[in-house]
Formats: sequence, structure tokens, C-alpha cells
Amino acid sequence: MRIIRSVPAMAAWSGALHREGVAIGLVSTMGALHAGHRALIRRARLSCDAVVVSLFVNPRQFGSGEDFFRYPRQARADAALCRTEGVDVLFMPSREAMYQRGFQTSVAVRNLARRWEGERRPGHFDGVATVVTKLLSLVRPGTAFFGQKDFQQSVLVRRLVEDLNLGADIVVCPTVRDHDGLALSSRNQYLTPPQRRAAPVLYEALQAGRTAILRGIRFGLEVTGAMRKVIATEPRMRVDYLAVCNPETLEPLARVTKTAVLLGAARLGRVRLIDNLVVKM
Amino acid sequence: MRIIRSVPAMAAWSGALHREGVAIGLVSTMGALHAGHRALIRRARLSCDAVVVSLFVNPRQFGSGEDFFRYPRQARADAALCRTEGVDVLFMPSREAMYQRGFQTSVAVRNLARRWEGERRPGHFDGVATVVTKLLSLVRPGTAFFGQKDFQQSVLVRRLVEDLNLGADIVVCPTVRDHDGLALSSRNQYLTPPQRRAAPVLYEALQAGRTAILRGIRFGLEVTGAMRKVIATEPRMRVDYLAVCNPETLEPLARVTKTAVLLGAARLGRVRLIDNLVVKM
Repeated sequence: MRIIRSVPAMAAWSGALHREGVAIGLVSTMGALHAGHRALIRRARLSCDAVVVSLFVNPRQFGSGEDFFRYPRQARADAALCRTEGVDVLFMPSREAMYQRGFQTSVAVRNLARRWEGERRPGHFDGVATVVTKLLSLVRPGTAFFGQKDFQQSVLVRRLVEDLNLGADIVVCPTVRDHDGLALSSRNQYLTPPQRRAAPVLYEALQAGRTAILRGIRFGLEVTGAMRKVIATEPRMRVDYLAVCNPETLEPLARVTKTAVLLGAARLGRVRLIDNLVVKM
Repeated sequence: MRIIRSVPAMAAWSGALHREGVAIGLVSTMGALHAGHRALIRRARLSCDAVVVSLFVNPRQFGSGEDFFRYPRQARADAALCRTEGVDVLFMPSREAMYQRGFQTSVAVRNLARRWEGERRPGHFDGVATVVTKLLSLVRPGTAFFGQKDFQQSVLVRRLVEDLNLGADIVVCPTVRDHDGLALSSRNQYLTPPQRRAAPVLYEALQAGRTAILRGIRFGLEVTGAMRKVIATEPRMRVDYLAVCNPETLEPLARVTKTAVLLGAARLGRVRLIDNLVVKM
């Protein structure tokens, strides 16, 4: 496995592979790799000739009061995981390499960034859209792999790629969960043992929403009510939002008539969890 | 010459050429081609294996009160010029092909878009940055050619390409002028004969600014004063701005100590002219 830290070296590597017609797969991460990332890498290995994993804790997608400085950093373990999984290039740029002196360009995906995570985390999705545009332009993968856990991000990235003609296929892979249903996330490391025991209730709430829909409940408000009732059984957990949405526009559904996505965000102490479930009818 | 109108066909053409290691040159235009565009195409022909000219009157770079609807459209003559100049592909997408249903992504280059044209034409440079990002992502040229006449645009595009890792070299070609010094522009077609006779005073003013600097005048305000005096000889012309700037940041210079760019914008009736001169010391 080759570790690349400079932007020109990354561009040169991918440029050379393109001239040979090699299909590149990209898995972009902020490190602290877990089994969810591993699933993305394995999926990339299956369908691409060469796999690039990027590891960059992107300051632009953190809000001012957020956890940029304490975000888990474990580059050595991450590199070991990538090597084990047969990654070809681990791209680990410095902050200065990605945002050089004078940097001032920003990419915004307006409508999709407005609600849910975008509303609670101002600027977050501009940071995501900007760094994803940079990584896709630099690596020029035929396919890029994202986790369904960040559902809004995955919808937004699809839109971004189509709107800016970035020319990559976007594959969204299923959320990987712990034995008790908690969606894997690098931020789960922040949970105390009692918080960790309480955390799966978010997924249970989403499942209750799905059950309600599959039993014939159609009004969005009734579905969110069913989810809310489950969350209420765990007094430690404070809901940020629970919503039933159109899976393409992410607008809330007054009535569920076809495929819907259930979105949830909640806090346990200072730790924020998000999760989602797609319900097909 | 091949005329391509669809985005996937454009992507397929450039993808195939990339795999063969062909160096693509891009000249992006809004049509109404004149000798300035021809110079860009010839420059591209000299240094690239294949030349793509894009012709798209980009609605997103026009303000609401601007001339989008009456902007000169002469596709047949433009295609003839491209054919004569040995262009390989003329890319003429429809508005719907570039901004498909649901389009919502925007690229902004913050600081460089703030002053001068950006201040007078709100949203203009977001429209430019977005369409240039799309064209560069789609065509993936090794080199893209821009005219110095739109000086602020050329500086902004350089920044954009570096910031988003778009991977094209940006070549800025000298402004092509009419016999009396007027910078060629598709909008010159709007000028009435008396306006056309008055128009070169903008360039004369810039030349007076250059002369002042070369004679030792250092204070920015004195230089703009020298320019303003020349413009005042033509009562038809109303100044939008005249400025002495750092050619990289486009910030006004209180004192000229090294290379400067003189920027000018003025109106003749409803027609707006811009021009510039770089002064090296």
C-alpha cells in the first residue's frame, strides 16, 4: 500500500492510472475506521481495479462548537486496516495541502442542505460538498462509496456529482450495526458505558416507525409519534429530530404513499447520534 | 468538426481521449465569437492535441436586469468560425442539459468575487465559477484558455481551479483590440455608431494610468485621477469604477510598488464596457 500525502502526487498517481484505463474506487473517510468503513472498502475492492482511501479530518465540515479537536485520530490503526483490506493508496493530506494559503472556494448544494443535519449544523454540508468536490476532482474515481448511515450526505453527494458533472458513480452501502442495532460511527467512542447501553433506542425508534408504516399507518405525524414514544422510554436521550421524508428531496411527508426514509438524530449527553431507515412499500 | 449537444456524449468523448493520452484544450465561450475568441482557439491549437470550444450562454452569470435575452446568438457563424480554425469539438449544450431538473449546486470564490464586477453584478461570479467547474469536470482539459479582457474572471478561475483541484492549466491570452484600441467584446455589437466612436476612451484612460505610473506616480488615488481625467473628456461615458489593484488579490493599491493591474468599467447608454491593463515595474 502506498501512502500519499501531497496533492500533486495524488493527481499524478490517478492521472497515470487513467491513461491505463484502470477503474479507480474511492472511499473518503475522516479516519477512526470501523467495520462500516471496512464494508465500504470491501465493496470497492469487489468492483474496482484500484482502491483509494482518503483520510482527512475536514475542518470545514465541523461547526465552531463541534468536536473537530477531539475527533478520534488513529492514523496508525487506520493504515493497518487499509493495508489488511488490500487498499492501493491511502491518501492522507495535511490541512495545508487541502486548504492552501488563499483558499476561498466553497461548494453549496442548496435545497438538500437546508433541513435536518444542515439546519442543526450550519456550514456542515458546504464543508462536505467542498471537500468531496476536491477529492473527486483529484482522484477522479469511476465509483465513490458512501455509507447509508449519513443518509442526507449520500443524497447530497449524488446531487453534487450530477450537478457539477463530476463523473463518478456514487454507491451507497448499507449501514453496519453493532449486535444491538446501534449504527457504527467513529463518534460512538465518545459514549460512556451507560450512554452506550442507552444508544440503541434510536434504532429501535426507527424500527417502530417502520413497523407502523408496514401496519398501514400513513400520516407522517402518526409515524413520528410512534418513533417518539420509543425514544421517550430512554430518559437520557434528547431528540434532535425524527422525520418521515421523501428519500430523494428529504422533504417531510404529510402522507406516506411510497418509499420513505425515516431520519433520526438525538443526543446522549454531549454525544450526538444519527441514524435512518428506508421503508419500501 | 464534431458538434456535441449532450452532456454524456461530451463526457464519453473526453473520457476516450484521456485513455489515449491526448492533451485536450478548452476554450469556453458564450458564442458571438470574434477575433478575441479566435486568438484563444489558435493558442489552444498550438499547444493541445485536440481543441474543444464550448458555446453556452450561461443564464446563471446574468443578473435579473441584465442582457441574457438579447445577448447576441449566432450559432451558425460561430460554428463556421470554429470549423475554419480547426476546432475538434464544438460543445453546444442546451440550458436543460447544463441545468437539469433539480439542479441546486453553486460554486463561490469568496474574496475575489467581492469587488469590482462582483459588486456591480451580484451573483455573476457564482454563475461563472459554477459553469466553469462543470465544463472543466466534463471536458477535463489539460489546459483551458481565457481572455485577459475579463481580468477578474481569469484570476478567479485560476483560484477556483487550484482550490477545487480541477487539474487544468489556465492560460490567459492578451486582450485583442480593434484598430482604435477598443477591447473586442461580443457586447460591442450593442453600441450605436456615436457610442462606438466614444468607446475607445476607456482604453485611453487606462493608458493614461499606465503612463502616470511609468512616469513615477505612486499613489493609487493619483493614478485613478489621471484615468478619470481622460474619461471626463467623453461626456457620454459614465464611470462604474477605475482602480489600481494588486493583480493577484484585486485589492486596491494605496501605493504602487510592483506590478499592478488597472481595472476600468464604464457605461455608454445601456452598454457596459470593461477593460484592463497590467503595468509591470
